[in-house]
Amino acid sequence: MKIALAQLNFHTGNFALNTGKIISCLDKAKKEGADLVVFPELCICGYPPRDFLEFSDFIHLCREQVDHIASCCKGIAAIVGAPSVNPQVEGKDLFNSAFFLCDGKVHSIRNKTLLPTYDVFDEYRYFEPNRSFEIVTYKNTRIALTICEDLWNINHNPLYITTPMDELIKQYPDLIINIAASPFSHQQSANRTAVLQNNARKYGLPVIYVNHAGAQTELIFDGGSMVLNAKGEIVNQLKYFEEDLSYVITTEINTLPAETTAQDKYASIYKALVLGTRDYFDKLGFKQAILGLSGGIDSALVLCIAAEALGKENVRAVLMPSQFSSDHSISDSLKLAANLGVKHDIIPIEKAFNQFRELLQPVFENRPFDLTEENMQARCRGLLLMSMSNKFGYILLNTSNKSELAVGYGTLYGDMCGGLSVIGDLYKTEVFELCRYINRSTEIIPNEIITKAPSAELRPDQKDSDSLPEYHVLDPVLYAYIEECKGPKEIIAAGHDANVVERILRLVNLNEYKRHQTPPILRISPKAFGMGRRLPIVAKYLI
Amino acid sequence: MKIALAQLNFHTGNFALNTGKIISCLDKAKKEGADLVVFPELCICGYPPRDFLEFSDFIHLCREQVDHIASCCKGIAAIVGAPSVNPQVEGKDLFNSAFFLCDGKVHSIRNKTLLPTYDVFDEYRYFEPNRSFEIVTYKNTRIALTICEDLWNINHNPLYITTPMDELIKQYPDLIINIAASPFSHQQSANRTAVLQNNARKYGLPVIYVNHAGAQTELIFDGGSMVLNAKGEIVNQLKYFEEDLSYVITTEINTLPAETTAQDKYASIYKALVLGTRDYFDKLGFKQAILGLSGGIDSALVLCIAAEALGKENVRAVLMPSQFSSDHSISDSLKLAANLGVKHDIIPIEKAFNQFRELLQPVFENRPFDLTEENMQARCRGLLLMSMSNKFGYILLNTSNKSELAVGYGTLYGDMCGGLSVIGDLYKTEVFELCRYINRSTEIIPNEIITKAPSAELRPDQKDSDSLPEYHVLDPVLYAYIEECKGPKEIIAAGHDANVVERILRLVNLNEYKRHQTPPILRISPKAFGMGRRLPIVAKYLI
Repeated sequence: MKIALAQLNFHTGNFALNTGKIISCLDKAKKEGADLVVFPELCICGYPPRDFLEFSDFIHLCREQVDHIASCCKGIAAIVGAPSVNPQVEGKDLFNSAFFLCDGKVHSIRNKTLLPTYDVFDEYRYFEPNRSFEIVTYKNTRIALTICEDLWNINHNPLYITTPMDELIKQYPDLIINIAASPFSHQQSANRTAVLQNNARKYGLPVIYVNHAGAQTELIFDGGSMVLNAKGEIVNQLKYFEEDLSYVITTEINTLPAETTAQDKYASIYKALVLGTRDYFDKLGFKQAILGLSGGIDSALVLCIAAEALGKENVRAVLMPSQFSSDHSISDSLKLAANLGVKHDIIPIEKAFNQFRELLQPVFENRPFDLTEENMQARCRGLLLMSMSNKFGYILLNTSNKSELAVGYGTLYGDMCGGLSVIGDLYKTEVFELCRYINRSTEIIPNEIITKAPSAELRPDQKDSDSLPEYHVLDPVLYAYIEECKGPKEIIAAGHDANVVERILRLVNLNEYKRHQTPPILRISPKAFGMGRRLPIVAKYLI
Repeated sequence: MKIALAQLNFHTGNFALNTGKIISCLDKAKKEGADLVVFPELCICGYPPRDFLEFSDFIHLCREQVDHIASCCKGIAAIVGAPSVNPQVEGKDLFNSAFFLCDGKVHSIRNKTLLPTYDVFDEYRYFEPNRSFEIVTYKNTRIALTICEDLWNINHNPLYITTPMDELIKQYPDLIINIAASPFSHQQSANRTAVLQNNARKYGLPVIYVNHAGAQTELIFDGGSMVLNAKGEIVNQLKYFEEDLSYVITTEINTLPAETTAQDKYASIYKALVLGTRDYFDKLGFKQAILGLSGGIDSALVLCIAAEALGKENVRAVLMPSQFSSDHSISDSLKLAANLGVKHDIIPIEKAFNQFRELLQPVFENRPFDLTEENMQARCRGLLLMSMSNKFGYILLNTSNKSELAVGYGTLYGDMCGGLSVIGDLYKTEVFELCRYINRSTEIIPNEIITKAPSAELRPDQKDSDSLPEYHVLDPVLYAYIEECKGPKEIIAAGHDANVVERILRLVNLNEYKRHQTPPILRISPKAFGMGRRLPIVAKYLI
């Protein structure tokens, strides 16, 4: 049997687009002599559909698309992912299903057993877990048809008490097909490959794995679909970060040569952020971005990513110096804009800042310049950028990094403004690494921007290190707390200074209220702020 | 057996406070001759602890508190709620547990079976469901000990395939105890009472129900703990919206006279919003609020609630007129501030607004005044309020209502600023009703504010109805879409104009990006924006 792996970029709720893509892919595969085309999990509606699943209208539309696609499956079969209605009165009303389509109709439906409900996943919010197991037979091939997480219960501390393949293997399948919606993080590609290899080896079966490629708000699906032989070797590796269509003949899987695959961390992150930015704009129907260029490394990095994602002609950089800006901030910014060929504006904020100080003088009286006045400057900039965004239809790109967001080193409604946070899941030390990656062959980002001491330039001679520990001290503590969920005792025991640790953890928890109001953050780590990390604002732990 | 119902206000992660309250309650109940004190679900750590449950440090601290409280249980028993570690390697690592404490130690642990994972609840994100059932026997009383949702699988379309009481009833319990964390919505008190009555009747047992009282960020726990006899009659009703401690003697339950309880919708909402506002400040350690007073009904309502919650001396109202403000907006605002005895400031924004227009003139050239300039005014006001908030340590109260948030009729970083959205879960028509409730005996809110046509006053002679359908048309469509999850066909079929419906639904979906950045919203409905309604930003459905 010749099977096509259709790794496509879907758009949540865009039924016309998704169905169109699926049908044109079916046509193409049919011409290539494929017997079966495998599409990813919930491809009909896009992943994750979130609470749209609570609308029966939405569920009906999904089913209509499935039936329409089924009617096109003549002389070819397809596996598509969509929600289906649970016929039992007990339990949740929906299943997360794989529809097997052939002979112009729905041949069979298999439901997802293991419903990831952690990190960015909320599947048990919507779906009833499957409890019955049956392979799908097509053209004499016995297929163990599984959905994403169904293969992930294979480590030493399994999250679920049922392992679907342990049930399906009793029915002597010939191969495993897994349709997935597995978002990128910089560790995910290696984890995912290991999980698929472990399944191939444990059950002694080839595995055909099909993932999404494309971003949905904060989640970036990196593709990387693949075919593994029964020894767990990859024999067909689809592209990362783009659509791809590939074929495999089932009888040949165990004789194909093994391929190797390795993803460089920063090369992957760069591609992910470019794809995430591009899809955010494309799928919302926007073309152009604006951002504030401060002369610092964060906005420099975001500008590079935006120019790559949207085209340099679609990005506008605005320099907004104040009386506290250094000359090199302007000159470094101009040099970067010139290197990238991006147009820029210069709008000094001093007059607006002074105007607000004057308006507030009767209220503030002679109170000294403090954080308030620093925030006022950031908010004058936010106001200018948002005004240009409104007037010209740009999306404002936010330039906060994960270290800043963690400790609240940013101004709500100031530099925390924006429609999309491009680098909000990169620690500052990772920002430096990614800039070095971008500069690996040519100096695109002026070296001065990378080497100078980070500063918000909101008061004379300010440095980030006046308010925060140095980033090489800060970031490992943040990593231990945020990514590894270690408590203060464990972090201190690992050799970090107790006062520093307590101060940092306190800042992280205190600033939950700021993070509640950040733009969506492109996710590149296993623990991103936003939908992946959910903490109460009002809480006392470690404060 | 004499049982105490301890309905207390806990603080998430504040172990010292929570344990202190529990122990002092135990002391008091012991003096009153109680045999057992029942505390609510997860009272040790507060509800909901959210991702703090992923920190083993947090889990250890919970267990330490439980053991400490157990050591105080001499001559008295207690039931407290806390997470416990799942001893099995398969499945999630935690249970949501009820600890039965007596004789100075943990006597037994019972785990929650039904884990709500819908709306604002995420319990399956953290907990493994219980699968074994055993009553707790104490002083010859056989107790069916259940946790909140465990009693809720009792309607015609049950959400779960297991009903814990159907298992426990086989062991001939004498009564049901249910420890709960059931947040307020204006329908919840009636629903909850019905569920408890149905359980009492179905199993022919008395029910002792203990809930939290107090707010945790957006969730407001309204108390309302109760005792029902085996006929489902309420024989002991604890207070709503405050802490309470009450006693019942188990042998007397079926002979006590029945009480009736009825909650008026707007009286309850008012109490809920006052409690929600007060606890947000108290638990964050803040005392004072600031807000912009526009002369409109929304800010008027928020000012009333804030004055009641925090004391009039702790609220500062700021009038920020522009060239487009009407005279009556100022005079109505002054009258309201005077009625409430709240201090006010007047800071005209015209100079700041003009300054920004001047700064942007080289970029905007001669483009006409449009939504950009409207937003600029709102953002000048946001900047002034945030500056005062920063300088004096106030929390800014947001005054957006649910209708505006639904259709995006508000300015991000402008009138959408704030630390807490007080009325963001009230439709505009409910805002009017609540104001009438506040004015039920005296005119606190000047009548002119209630009767005039709503306007943002951001351009000459503007009315909300220039941009939006009238609220009596808008709100029912919003309600059908947001609360009832009806699709366009169903809403139109119910008699609404097709063009209006399509326009409104499109606006709701388009403005998901704005709602992503709103402050936490006090929840008073069964479907509140924020953690209760989770939609993708990038999606095409109905757009």
